[in-house]
Amino acid sequence: MQVDLYFDYISPFAFFGWRNLFPLAQKYQAEVRLHPVVFGALLSHWGQLGPAEIPPKRVYTFKTVVRYAALHKIELRGPAQHPFNPLAALRMTLAAGERMPQVAQVLWDAIWVDGVDGGDPEALVQKLSQAGQDGPGLWAKAQTPAIKAELKSNTDAAIQRGVFGVPTFAVGEELFWGNDSLEWVALALQGKDPLDMDKVQHLVNRPRGTDRRQMQR
Amino acid sequence: MQVDLYFDYISPFAFFGWRNLFPLAQKYQAEVRLHPVVFGALLSHWGQLGPAEIPPKRVYTFKTVVRYAALHKIELRGPAQHPFNPLAALRMTLAAGERMPQVAQVLWDAIWVDGVDGGDPEALVQKLSQAGQDGPGLWAKAQTPAIKAELKSNTDAAIQRGVFGVPTFAVGEELFWGNDSLEWVALALQGKDPLDMDKVQHLVNRPRGTDRRQMQR
Repeated sequence: MQVDLYFDYISPFAFFGWRNLFPLAQKYQAEVRLHPVVFGALLSHWGQLGPAEIPPKRVYTFKTVVRYAALHKIELRGPAQHPFNPLAALRMTLAAGERMPQVAQVLWDAIWVDGVDGGDPEALVQKLSQAGQDGPGLWAKAQTPAIKAELKSNTDAAIQRGVFGVPTFAVGEELFWGNDSLEWVALALQGKDPLDMDKVQHLVNRPRGTDRRQMQR
Repeated sequence: MQVDLYFDYISPFAFFGWRNLFPLAQKYQAEVRLHPVVFGALLSHWGQLGPAEIPPKRVYTFKTVVRYAALHKIELRGPAQHPFNPLAALRMTLAAGERMPQVAQVLWDAIWVDGVDGGDPEALVQKLSQAGQDGPGLWAKAQTPAIKAELKSNTDAAIQRGVFGVPTFAVGEELFWGNDSLEWVALALQGKDPLDMDKVQHLVNRPRGTDRRQMQR
């Protein structure tokens, strides 16, 4: 049994999803496969705005983050800037190869717990080295064309698969979006996904009865 | 104590939120105030796409609806068309005045449980009359300029307040978005909202470190 995680350090809900996924995967003896992707590229592809791009949703999102952290006793300072450019962090993660889980853990904690600037490679390299990872080596590798291309192809593959947000989890063919969806991931890992595809197809195949552009208020 | 509900019949999650809100409000002795609003107008104002406007998100949304209904044993056929034009249903709801909760209950069940076309006033009027409500009278009133203006001003007031989606709940000044947020609504109704506004302000005031348009993949 395997569970995929599509993530970008930009998202606090992906941070919560990251924290929650590993105990769950262990409980159901599932292997976690990590897929760093560029959230901004997902948004651009689907023509969507991110939560931080709609003023009241940005405030609401941070309120939810503060509430969630308080309720789950997560020490959280949040990144020094937000949004930040996550490319260096994502590429260093890919550069880690087999050590991806350990490197991602250091980066998540640096950015969201310690409040490091997630867009500042030097600060991230320092954190990695302090945690016993080869920060300078990862940063050197992160800047190679091969790693840059890998992040791009990872993101394209996610789009191809229908990933539209982060965190997205996948169990087999099924995608689950958002930290809240771990409830469904847990059921899927137990072979108890309550999905009835006939019912879904009925709903999906409903004719469109209106179009927003034609609608009069 | 009062709790506001901003809703549109177009949204299955607003249907679930509707079902879940009343037992919660009763438990904490809160009065429910109903605010029918035009979801499409919220999306247009904030420049956002709705879940049904992004192909893989549309399928994912219906999957989540089927899963949620199965897990919570909700009989759900879904509307005959989707999306449908919700204006007639929303205006008949406003036209009901003091009987708004009863009329909304009939409309929600007609559309999402019985599978009536939510954009077909005749079918909705028939369902209302069968349920002992004055269907023809509500439909006549729904077409008056006063009711049309009220739905528009309701929607504008919601936008002014920062409502960006449905269902949105409000307890005092605080908005809570989505059926999932009822966990927070329950805490707020008990005076136990774990919100620390200092922490929120710290996060909100973080400088923007990047802009999606400037980001290189």
